[in-house]
Amino acid sequence: MHTDLQDYSHKRYNILTGEWVLVSPHRAKRPWQGQNEAVSNEVRPTYDPSCYLCARNTRINGEINPKYKDVFVFTNDFAALQTGSKSFTVDDGLLIAQSEQGICKVICFSPDHSKSLADMTAKDIEKVVFAWQKEYKELGDNKLINYVQIFENKGAVMGCSNPHPHGQIWSQTTLPNEVDKKDQQQLDYFNKNKSSLLGDYIKQELAKKERILFENDAFVVIIPFWAIWPFETMIVPKEQQHSILDLKDKESFLFAEAISVITKAYDKLFNTSFPYSSGIHQAPTNGKDNNHWHWHMSFYPPLLRSATVKKFMVGYEMFGSPQRDITPELAAKMLTKLITSKA
Amino acid sequence: MHTDLQDYSHKRYNILTGEWVLVSPHRAKRPWQGQNEAVSNEVRPTYDPSCYLCARNTRINGEINPKYKDVFVFTNDFAALQTGSKSFTVDDGLLIAQSEQGICKVICFSPDHSKSLADMTAKDIEKVVFAWQKEYKELGDNKLINYVQIFENKGAVMGCSNPHPHGQIWSQTTLPNEVDKKDQQQLDYFNKNKSSLLGDYIKQELAKKERILFENDAFVVIIPFWAIWPFETMIVPKEQQHSILDLKDKESFLFAEAISVITKAYDKLFNTSFPYSSGIHQAPTNGKDNNHWHWHMSFYPPLLRSATVKKFMVGYEMFGSPQRDITPELAAKMLTKLITSKA
Ligand SMILES: O=P(O)(O)O[C@H]1O[C@H](CO)[C@@H](O)[C@H](O)[C@H]1O
Ligand SMILES: O=P(O)(O)O[C@H]1O[C@H](CO)[C@@H](O)[C@H](O)[C@H]1O
Repeated sequence: MHTDLQDYSHKRYNILTGEWVLVSPHRAKRPWQGQNEAVSNEVRPTYDPSCYLCARNTRINGEINPKYKDVFVFTNDFAALQTGSKSFTVDDGLLIAQSEQGICKVICFSPDHSKSLADMTAKDIEKVVFAWQKEYKELGDNKLINYVQIFENKGAVMGCSNPHPHGQIWSQTTLPNEVDKKDQQQLDYFNKNKSSLLGDYIKQELAKKERILFENDAFVVIIPFWAIWPFETMIVPKEQQHSILDLKDKESFLFAEAISVITKAYDKLFNTSFPYSSGIHQAPTNGKDNNHWHWHMSFYPPLLRSATVKKFMVGYEMFGSPQRDITPELAAKMLTKLITSKA
Repeated sequence: MHTDLQDYSHKRYNILTGEWVLVSPHRAKRPWQGQNEAVSNEVRPTYDPSCYLCARNTRINGEINPKYKDVFVFTNDFAALQTGSKSFTVDDGLLIAQSEQGICKVICFSPDHSKSLADMTAKDIEKVVFAWQKEYKELGDNKLINYVQIFENKGAVMGCSNPHPHGQIWSQTTLPNEVDKKDQQQLDYFNKNKSSLLGDYIKQELAKKERILFENDAFVVIIPFWAIWPFETMIVPKEQQHSILDLKDKESFLFAEAISVITKAYDKLFNTSFPYSSGIHQAPTNGKDNNHWHWHMSFYPPLLRSATVKKFMVGYEMFGSPQRDITPELAAKMLTKLITSKA
């Protein structure tokens, strides 16, 4: 254990993006006098007649949802990216732009309006994993699409406009910024070391056991050394896999189990339906050599001290670097306790 | 006018960071069913006995604020960066960290608890500019400090824990991520073209007049072509200056005037005290050759549609790229109208 990291301000290097996070361990002591978030303890019905994601309800564009039994995927009615929109380039001195095409989908995790992933069984979450695989494959096969971003915004504080359990998939022609950075960092490492960056990192973490929250035969759940959000976590396959299409045999279930474990622990932490954005970063579908990719799923939850006090990524974070107040090691201790306790 | 940019999804290149923003003009039509922010229409007193920033009040550490008349600067009682903390390096395989020292200050813009920059005269804002100059100079002269980040978080939604008009200054040994990117992009351009990147950009914008909101003899207020936040703006000196220490004669007043104009327009836009984070990016104080730097002040306000509906930078934005719904050109029209109208 590097004890200096618990006592003094420092920055940590994110091996996946090449960027830094500022860590100020002593800052957690400052009193909070700012905005508190609203907590909704409202018990939701299993079916809401006004919800546009519930089975058999009518969406804004007039389409009627089928009477789906587990997972239901449809194209976003207000897609940020579309196919068939005009292709163009602006290359006018220092004004540089280019058209972007894509397909945006919505994926309902369950017909039950009242549930979240944390309330579902690993067996049910596995059906979500199967749907993600199908979408990644089908979208990736489309020649317009070179990258598929699977994500979920959970909770009103994360801009989620409907509490029905659902995620999104935005797929597009070019690589978004964050994917581009991770592509480059992984490639540089792979070329130099002939091994996977994340694979080697996980081996190191498994030996140290300071930031590992959970492991099963195929996955670890970890707070990365360079985590930005107070309780940020990452699910990583122990052996290198380029994308979720590489999941073999029981691994889709083991992945679902990892999702189940971490989302349940989150809900226990502040005794609230824990808000977060989660996302899967995996190999682009551009048909190029992506042997350097090691896919992983990250959770970025905003809460800091309680169900109502979140971390604000504002002034210094926007203009300087991300900054965190409690150390990843302390956050790991808190979450591990909740995972191993049987309550 | 590139009309395709108003009609079709595209990405725009940020010349200062080398990153992209996804623009989806048609998305603004989607109905909003998500979280609304609370608006406080509370009229604040000019003095609040419980405010730790008001003159003559006692702060948490027991110090008593002086009876200040205009601007008051002190060292942050809960500084994220400190001097005299231990120096160390962690270079342990893929775990990479290094200690970071610095000085964090708080700057009260006015003793009047009820005011914001938008309510102050340009003459009073000029005193804030003088204080920024003094701090940039003094902190920069400290051999521990190589970069000085001046910023303001305004409004509860921006994590501001006290409504008393104030900003912060975090100064440190190394360059934060965002500054590092801008340093590199400006240097590359300067080496290639022997002129300032932002200077050349502003000339192009002054010829087009599509995104300029206001200009005086020394400054333009502009929505940058690559703006991320719905009503993001930037104040830029027309002639290249490395830092705010280069302000000559009347220019500190003209800078204050630009701040006054844009903050007043913001308050009018949704008829509310407009929340934002603002910050000044300028030359590092590392004593190196910083001839490529062109300082500028940016405003990142979160509101999108009204005083209560903000833009959420969540799932896709965190895992992919920033994404905006209304175009910079539309935002420029809306703000320009408020600046030129005499009401
Ligand atoms: O220092 P303050 O105003 O208490 O804190 C605020 O600004 C800081 C710098 O941007 C952020 O790190 C905090 O999350 C935010 O609440
Ligand atoms: O598509 P939704 O859920 O309506 O919208 C939400 O997620 C999007 C993708 O992260 C964001 O761009 C929006 O700001 C957010 O409100």
